[in-house]
Amino acid sequence: MSRERIDLSQDDIPRAWYNILPDLPESLPSYKDVESGKEIRRLPNTFTKTASELEFSEKRWNKIPEKVLEAYKNFGRPLPLIRARRLERFLKTPARIYFKCENLPPGGTFKTNASLPQAYWAMKEGYKRTVFGGTATTRTKLIHAFTARVFGLTPTIFMTRADCEQNRDQVIFLREMFGADLLESPSNRTETGRRLLKENPNHPGSSDIIGMEVEEETRQSEDGVSIISSDLNSNLLTQTVIGLEVKKQLELIDEKPDVLVASVGSGSNFYGLTAPFMKERLTRLKDLKFLAVESETSAKLTKGEYKYVPLEWMPGLLVKTYEFGWETHPPPIKGIGIQTKCAAPLLSFLRHLGIVDTAVYPKDERFVFDTARIFLQTEGRLLAPESAYPIRAVMDEAIEAKRKGEEKVIVVCVSGTLYLDFDEKERYTSLAI
Amino acid sequence: MSRERIDLSQDDIPRAWYNILPDLPESLPSYKDVESGKEIRRLPNTFTKTASELEFSEKRWNKIPEKVLEAYKNFGRPLPLIRARRLERFLKTPARIYFKCENLPPGGTFKTNASLPQAYWAMKEGYKRTVFGGTATTRTKLIHAFTARVFGLTPTIFMTRADCEQNRDQVIFLREMFGADLLESPSNRTETGRRLLKENPNHPGSSDIIGMEVEEETRQSEDGVSIISSDLNSNLLTQTVIGLEVKKQLELIDEKPDVLVASVGSGSNFYGLTAPFMKERLTRLKDLKFLAVESETSAKLTKGEYKYVPLEWMPGLLVKTYEFGWETHPPPIKGIGIQTKCAAPLLSFLRHLGIVDTAVYPKDERFVFDTARIFLQTEGRLLAPESAYPIRAVMDEAIEAKRKGEEKVIVVCVSGTLYLDFDEKERYTSLAI
Repeated sequence: MSRERIDLSQDDIPRAWYNILPDLPESLPSYKDVESGKEIRRLPNTFTKTASELEFSEKRWNKIPEKVLEAYKNFGRPLPLIRARRLERFLKTPARIYFKCENLPPGGTFKTNASLPQAYWAMKEGYKRTVFGGTATTRTKLIHAFTARVFGLTPTIFMTRADCEQNRDQVIFLREMFGADLLESPSNRTETGRRLLKENPNHPGSSDIIGMEVEEETRQSEDGVSIISSDLNSNLLTQTVIGLEVKKQLELIDEKPDVLVASVGSGSNFYGLTAPFMKERLTRLKDLKFLAVESETSAKLTKGEYKYVPLEWMPGLLVKTYEFGWETHPPPIKGIGIQTKCAAPLLSFLRHLGIVDTAVYPKDERFVFDTARIFLQTEGRLLAPESAYPIRAVMDEAIEAKRKGEEKVIVVCVSGTLYLDFDEKERYTSLAI
Repeated sequence: MSRERIDLSQDDIPRAWYNILPDLPESLPSYKDVESGKEIRRLPNTFTKTASELEFSEKRWNKIPEKVLEAYKNFGRPLPLIRARRLERFLKTPARIYFKCENLPPGGTFKTNASLPQAYWAMKEGYKRTVFGGTATTRTKLIHAFTARVFGLTPTIFMTRADCEQNRDQVIFLREMFGADLLESPSNRTETGRRLLKENPNHPGSSDIIGMEVEEETRQSEDGVSIISSDLNSNLLTQTVIGLEVKKQLELIDEKPDVLVASVGSGSNFYGLTAPFMKERLTRLKDLKFLAVESETSAKLTKGEYKYVPLEWMPGLLVKTYEFGWETHPPPIKGIGIQTKCAAPLLSFLRHLGIVDTAVYPKDERFVFDTARIFLQTEGRLLAPESAYPIRAVMDEAIEAKRKGEEKVIVVCVSGTLYLDFDEKERYTSLAI
């Protein structure tokens, strides 16, 4: 076994996802009905029954369905863990740095891990369409459209009219390449949309309206079901394939991690990497640091308040989460994937329990660029901008280790890529001018 | 071992590249000096000594240097061979289709295989810079810039002024992210450039001029050496890692190929896949088809003439190759990677010997789009446009197998990708309108 790239065989792929809930000292706070204040421990029935049952499930191990395992394998799992030897040399650090590659095909994003099971459950429960709001990054829309097709479903996507106008090429790509049922929101498909269009035929749309349209569309329809890309416990659960693989990989080379690092938007890649290691810390008080990396524009875990708030992806419910004090949405940063106002309820709870550390990095985009440049020239991977944040945190940890002369073991999740083979380098080039 | 995705372990990576020259019934035709007509069996000394020695070498097996092996592993080799089960079902074919993934990080292109050793030899021979013309696809420039950095060298790139003006973002990316020494050609760096700029300060440049500038720059300089991405025998040689891995993978599942398919620009991915299988056919008369897939805009192997021609990448020499009868360069097609006027000398020779079959596909871009859409929806990989051509040939072979009720085994090289995570979908979207 090479200590440079630690592979697992297909036989080593985890057979079950890990759920941390039964191992926590307290119960996860319930959701609440906005109007009655009544406690709720399931999802609205616009989601799949499976996702709903998993939301507050206390079942520790959840078997990965055979067809999902097959799809995981087909798209590259188990994924390599790579020793960042050249980055270590560049930093002259005694720390040993390992990065987990969640940046591989088809989408170049870890979201594939959660989106495949969601589409599978939809298929299994008899739905013909997955319905989702295209409010996050391009790759999130694309990966949902893709996983729908993997399981023979049609992707229905709501995108704001403004978004569609600015990204006509995306619209065409989703419609033509995936045969997506793509709606410009507000749309004529729903009562909400029709009402808003009547008021203003050129309504630009908003993510709140998309939330309402997705909810209405899936509530009324027999054949469509709502899916989202993060936030839900079922999404966090399925991301644990990341950490479960990393655990096996580190065991193979007899390495014990000191710090686990990942970026946090709503936090599903962070949870996926760290949750399988948390039990150890919970039960054995092992000195293991879980470092959630945020942008100062949205440092909810670091500076936000833990409270019940309404979320656009689940109209009618209040959810307990860390919320950052935005008055209005801040101007987008390059690492747009980590710029969210709230963290996932479960991750928020872990933070509340004191299990999660945080690091905050400035929105100064030069730093994203510099980090990405160093990682590209040393490790040869072009980071998605949001993945530059945790790599910067790794570099800072490694520099500290050098100062202290410590042989620290740092493991980081590279959650997304911009391949060298992309044509539009703007995300980086506009930083460089 | 799963028959769906056939992995090799890092220990199974080929230790030597295969050279077909000693196994051929005739010698590869020499190059000729343009002026004297003298036969030459090496490269000009603007290339590395190693590449020059390999050009007409009769050594069958060439050990892969340890540092190149390490880089191959670090960037994902051995790469998976995947059974295209969903495509088979879509086509209702009894054929078994396997695709070799040469579309993975860092560049999403098979060119990494050849570019890494070239940069390694440059480093080993004491050069500080690799010098190349950025006349091919974006990903070729990027991969050369990248491999230079892997071995601690600076990439010097000549791009035409017109190209630079149209692709300002690429220029910035190469300069800022890779620290490339990027020259707008005609440039002030060379006598050729200065003369042309004097005549016309806004000279748009051309690939011929780039060829002359690269030649002059590397002839005069102590620290720079010329590298190119295909054509040379050393490039074809190093691409044999593709076919050597495929051979092992097929043996593991006890499968015997009937057809091997790849696209042909100058032909290095085609050679890389097929050469390791050619010996069998040469010596045992095995019924094995090697299918080179071309575009009708540049069907050199199918319709071209086998003759001595001057090539822009090697000024002063004549090279025997199949040349397509272009008067002027045709308008670029989407699969620009396969639109070349000439094939690599060695591949041309194999065609001349009757070992290689060809298929030609129309330039009609709807067909590229349709093929890519089908492959995306079935196999979940977004093909680089040039990789859509061989996949179409595979589909046609599979349909023929269905008609004849034959259980044919078809193996294809997916030489490049456009990841789902690219922002500019133009290459496909402009086809879809």
